[in-house]
Amino acid sequence: MTKIIDFQTDPSKYRHWKVAYEGEVATLFMDVDENGGLFEGYQLKLNSYDLGVDIELADVVQRMRFEHPEVKVVVMRSGKDRVFCAGANIRMLGGASHAHKVNFCKFTNETRNTYEAAEADSGQKYIAAVKGACAGGGYELAIACNHIILTDDGSSSVALPEVPLLAVLPGTGGLTRVTDKRKVRRDLADIFCTMEEGVRGRRAQEWRLVDEVVPNSKFDETVERRAREFAAASAKAAPAGGIVLGPLGRTIREDGSVSYSLVEVALDRAARKATITLNGPDGEAPATAEALVALGDQSYLLRLARELDDAILHLRLNEMELGLLVFRSQGDAAAVIAQEAVLLDNQDHWLANEILAYWKRVMKRIDMTSRSMAALVEHGSCFAGPLAEILWAVDRSYMMDGAFEGDNRPLAAIRLSAGNFGRYPMGNGLTRLQTRFLAEPEAVTALEAKIGEAIEAEDAAALGLVTFVHDDIDWDDEVRIFMEERVSFSPDAMTGMEANLRFAGPETMETRIFGRLTAWQNWIFQRPNAVGESGALQRYGTGLRGEFNMQRV
Amino acid sequence: MTKIIDFQTDPSKYRHWKVAYEGEVATLFMDVDENGGLFEGYQLKLNSYDLGVDIELADVVQRMRFEHPEVKVVVMRSGKDRVFCAGANIRMLGGASHAHKVNFCKFTNETRNTYEAAEADSGQKYIAAVKGACAGGGYELAIACNHIILTDDGSSSVALPEVPLLAVLPGTGGLTRVTDKRKVRRDLADIFCTMEEGVRGRRAQEWRLVDEVVPNSKFDETVERRAREFAAASAKAAPAGGIVLGPLGRTIREDGSVSYSLVEVALDRAARKATITLNGPDGEAPATAEALVALGDQSYLLRLARELDDAILHLRLNEMELGLLVFRSQGDAAAVIAQEAVLLDNQDHWLANEILAYWKRVMKRIDMTSRSMAALVEHGSCFAGPLAEILWAVDRSYMMDGAFEGDNRPLAAIRLSAGNFGRYPMGNGLTRLQTRFLAEPEAVTALEAKIGEAIEAEDAAALGLVTFVHDDIDWDDEVRIFMEERVSFSPDAMTGMEANLRFAGPETMETRIFGRLTAWQNWIFQRPNAVGESGALQRYGTGLRGEFNMQRV
Repeated sequence: MTKIIDFQTDPSKYRHWKVAYEGEVATLFMDVDENGGLFEGYQLKLNSYDLGVDIELADVVQRMRFEHPEVKVVVMRSGKDRVFCAGANIRMLGGASHAHKVNFCKFTNETRNTYEAAEADSGQKYIAAVKGACAGGGYELAIACNHIILTDDGSSSVALPEVPLLAVLPGTGGLTRVTDKRKVRRDLADIFCTMEEGVRGRRAQEWRLVDEVVPNSKFDETVERRAREFAAASAKAAPAGGIVLGPLGRTIREDGSVSYSLVEVALDRAARKATITLNGPDGEAPATAEALVALGDQSYLLRLARELDDAILHLRLNEMELGLLVFRSQGDAAAVIAQEAVLLDNQDHWLANEILAYWKRVMKRIDMTSRSMAALVEHGSCFAGPLAEILWAVDRSYMMDGAFEGDNRPLAAIRLSAGNFGRYPMGNGLTRLQTRFLAEPEAVTALEAKIGEAIEAEDAAALGLVTFVHDDIDWDDEVRIFMEERVSFSPDAMTGMEANLRFAGPETMETRIFGRLTAWQNWIFQRPNAVGESGALQRYGTGLRGEFNMQRV
Repeated sequence: MTKIIDFQTDPSKYRHWKVAYEGEVATLFMDVDENGGLFEGYQLKLNSYDLGVDIELADVVQRMRFEHPEVKVVVMRSGKDRVFCAGANIRMLGGASHAHKVNFCKFTNETRNTYEAAEADSGQKYIAAVKGACAGGGYELAIACNHIILTDDGSSSVALPEVPLLAVLPGTGGLTRVTDKRKVRRDLADIFCTMEEGVRGRRAQEWRLVDEVVPNSKFDETVERRAREFAAASAKAAPAGGIVLGPLGRTIREDGSVSYSLVEVALDRAARKATITLNGPDGEAPATAEALVALGDQSYLLRLARELDDAILHLRLNEMELGLLVFRSQGDAAAVIAQEAVLLDNQDHWLANEILAYWKRVMKRIDMTSRSMAALVEHGSCFAGPLAEILWAVDRSYMMDGAFEGDNRPLAAIRLSAGNFGRYPMGNGLTRLQTRFLAEPEAVTALEAKIGEAIEAEDAAALGLVTFVHDDIDWDDEVRIFMEERVSFSPDAMTGMEANLRFAGPETMETRIFGRLTAWQNWIFQRPNAVGESGALQRYGTGLRGEFNMQRV
């Protein structure tokens, strides 16, 4: 699996999904091309999926919000007759490296979270209309929807057969959503998750696994009616049309570096480090929401979000040995604040809301990235408002203090905006500043009084906004020593440590999925009972059961 | 490591701890005998610990509450000059099996939780008085105390050097308590957890790693004064004397079965199953708190708690291949209720309170046990009040329905008590009934109206108290099929699934330690970077650094 995985796609390239738009309701058909796998060596039978299928789904979900803001209800159903979705492809999993499995699950989890949150964030409600077998990752697709309708045809069922069949967990949020979203009684959850055949009909509703069960003869009609009812009950504004998300301008060079219009990724593979530079606005902020719409996909923060999102995903999947991501910025901080201001001033406008929500998601993608991360706040930088969030997403930050010889850029400064106090919450439901100052909530209040000020190094350190400030004499050495040391540590220990340190405070379903469920799944993905030569994943489809070491740990 | 690990000890056998009792203040000296390791092959230098050291600590903490209820403040300090505690012994960890490492960490975590909770549960406050190096598990001992005093002697420091030194996590609650108890700012936590040398003096206080830093010349005096101040401020009642926890009567037979006075453990190693039978009271309930005290360690629920606790620990560490624990009970349910009633009626009495708090801890020990667990509610059983908690701690339960041929025991029934509605909360802070009925809080309210009733099978099923009810015809087959199937699954998948299904609802520091931190640590404990031949744990002390696979996962 060494080819470059591209997260960019568009409807003209889809092989696995079809969308029918009918006013306020869109229907999303999963119809996986079994010969369309991202890698060689497996067929995507029975609507099973691999990362390629999920990249398309993520694209659909994203375009639904930007290109089709008139949509209030999305119905997810199968394009095949007898199966809704058989889950992640087992042969793909069996053949994938540990790192690919883990990254695959992380991305699919992020996509599930994105459409699950679409109702709260954008007023787009997802319905799973389940006909045929809906197993494993298939049920995890459904359970991330806001409403599940199951047909009662005597055979259609929902199931999480991973444990008995494959000796791995329903790790794409399945276990967590069973207990904490569906709130299935714990012993019933135990039965459900240990049976291969799943649960059918009325029992599925009694056990809270689905919201409604309808006779097969009335299935299509009920789904249609329910979608129209939900749309009618929605308070979402329905603008006439959306904007088009055109292809990103992107150049990937031989040495691995990547350029976009606003984002530059420089690689130093020997030092196991990528430096991501975010540039400030290259044009005026639009004056009104109408002007924002007229800019389409070219407005500053939307373009930056799309490019940064793509860069992070590219590094995660295609540059596995880079241990450290270093964030820099260069540009006009006041212009960044002006770009965000038009969005904050027009939060009720669908597009401004979508761009802010997208920036929130990109910041969460950074929070969840299993690489050590640092920010360098240099002279000429523009860590302001939305970009300043990065300073508190990374593990630590370094800021230039005072004039540097031969450097005539404006002195390094940080600027806060109202956006930092609520528009970009983390997965734990708190802002990054609230999480950072968990012990002293009054520090957050004090920072609100600083909105708009250019906060230079000494003040930024005193306010706790950055980790270190260094002057001209120490800067190079301090930054270099940190970077060299950081990439010398065991990547595994870093991953575990960062996963524990980054999310203080309250737990949500989201943090629980990434923090607890994922960690256990990763553990199992290391164990011979699952991935060994005679393990269940390798043995799947051979007619032989896995051979297990029976010691309980 | 095949010898039987015994969790029973008493002060006459301690090799590693000394306690000085002076009225309301007790001082607990850690003074590890370096030749007193539980296994061969390592020396416990620098006050480092292994499971044997922790078994003694758990015993001290337990006796402190039952034998010395006059104690309001416990000062934990080192019996050695230049070191507080160097943490878990690395050579022991390097030589231990994966399962032993995991079980060792679980037990040490349970012990930390127990003394951390002693202030809230019993009014016993723990102070860590830190002089000398306090590193890794040493700092984890301190951070579980309620107050940390560090001497400022120019060299004493607190440190979590696991990540840079050993490529594993501070997994005994360290990372979680840094973020969520001490609420250390996240980037400072990152620095702290990646530096070998730790943090000294005033900075340790500024970073919130300790509560106070005092000049070395005033250290002893300050510790003494602070202890007296805390004791004076305590509202804890100070009874004249405690009760003695005598040795348990226990027989371990050749075939692995274990007998106590109230608990029987029958083993079927071929079927990978242990059956734990809890017997009802063998005497009258004491009429008053004074009568309870007079019974000493022989009162029913205390004896049952001690025996059950010992049995669970024994099975965890000494019978690793048993996949299933089956709980049965036999006895007079009304007598169980009567025994609990005297405790509930005298909750303000120190001993009644301690016994109830101990039962809470034993139930949590069961929640945290990585084995599949089931309960059989048979005729003649006494799952009532405190014993009924077991029905909702296990993964599922089976109940006999109606008369069985040739069985003249009283029909199976479950009895609820007021204790089930608050005295035995889980780690998530909810009662087991609240967790079970997360989706329908009104079901818990309805159950309160049933307190005291004998609830037979059909009603118990309708009320959701048990998973399955079966009559004479189906019982044997259903139970047998379940047991056979359960132990055929991959133990790893079971562990991961149960860890996710058992703790729905709110997250606490406790559930986060066992759910998130432990899972990541277990993952790392599987990875070659830590445990491989050239991994950091094996290389420790050789002068060579670990060799790492640099792929990030």
